[in-house]
Amino acid sequence: MKIDHIGIAVKTLSEAAKTYEDTLGLKRSSEDQVEEQGVRLAMLDIGESRLELLEPTRPDSPIGKFLSKRGEGLHHIALQVENIELMLANLKAAGIRLIDEKPRSGAHNSRVAFIHPSSTHGVLLELVQYGE
Amino acid sequence: MKIDHIGIAVKTLSEAAKTYEDTLGLKRSSEDQVEEQGVRLAMLDIGESRLELLEPTRPDSPIGKFLSKRGEGLHHIALQVENIELMLANLKAAGIRLIDEKPRSGAHNSRVAFIHPSSTHGVLLELVQYGE
Repeated sequence: MKIDHIGIAVKTLSEAAKTYEDTLGLKRSSEDQVEEQGVRLAMLDIGESRLELLEPTRPDSPIGKFLSKRGEGLHHIALQVENIELMLANLKAAGIRLIDEKPRSGAHNSRVAFIHPSSTHGVLLELVQYGE
Repeated sequence: MKIDHIGIAVKTLSEAAKTYEDTLGLKRSSEDQVEEQGVRLAMLDIGESRLELLEPTRPDSPIGKFLSKRGEGLHHIALQVENIELMLANLKAAGIRLIDEKPRSGAHNSRVAFIHPSSTHGVLLELVQYGE
């Protein structure tokens, strides 16, 4: 298991990406827009992981609501796993509250599922499995 | 550069560590107490990085204040750098607000410095350099 990415909610993607590129020297590896989630995102490489900057495309999206409630900042941690179904089954058996009981499609041929922060001491965790 | 660790503020270290160990299968690599910072901490290995669980030893410590204001959850990201002085000089020259203008001593023969979240879109960043 490794950290796939750390999600950061921001108001303006271009400004935030520029800050992280210019001041920390990170390199933007991809950009994307997921209309279903109401989010525009940019990935910045760091070691084996990435920072994922998330800007809402509408105020009632999950990131839009997060921003109005808590402001910009750390949003979630995504962990790369080898067998997401097995992981979800084990978590459910252990009484962990899942947001997604089954994986759904993510970017770059991945399957993803979120774990509810009430079961992980306030941290929104995402599981990611790539390929098949 | 890589992610050294992700800091997570928790109410009870033993409970939180057990959750992360039992449900995610992470392994605890070290525990520590830094009385000056009013914090007790446990490190959990994940890939090339670690999760740092932080429990306050007194309510008026930085983590104690964070908990009463925001509750449990993501607190900071620490980036491992090769030349912390150069990095701080570059950040200062770029107009970034620093919490520590000079590195101070951290755990495991490290030097650390914090960057103010007002300059990094709400994210409290820590720079860490190990050894000499």
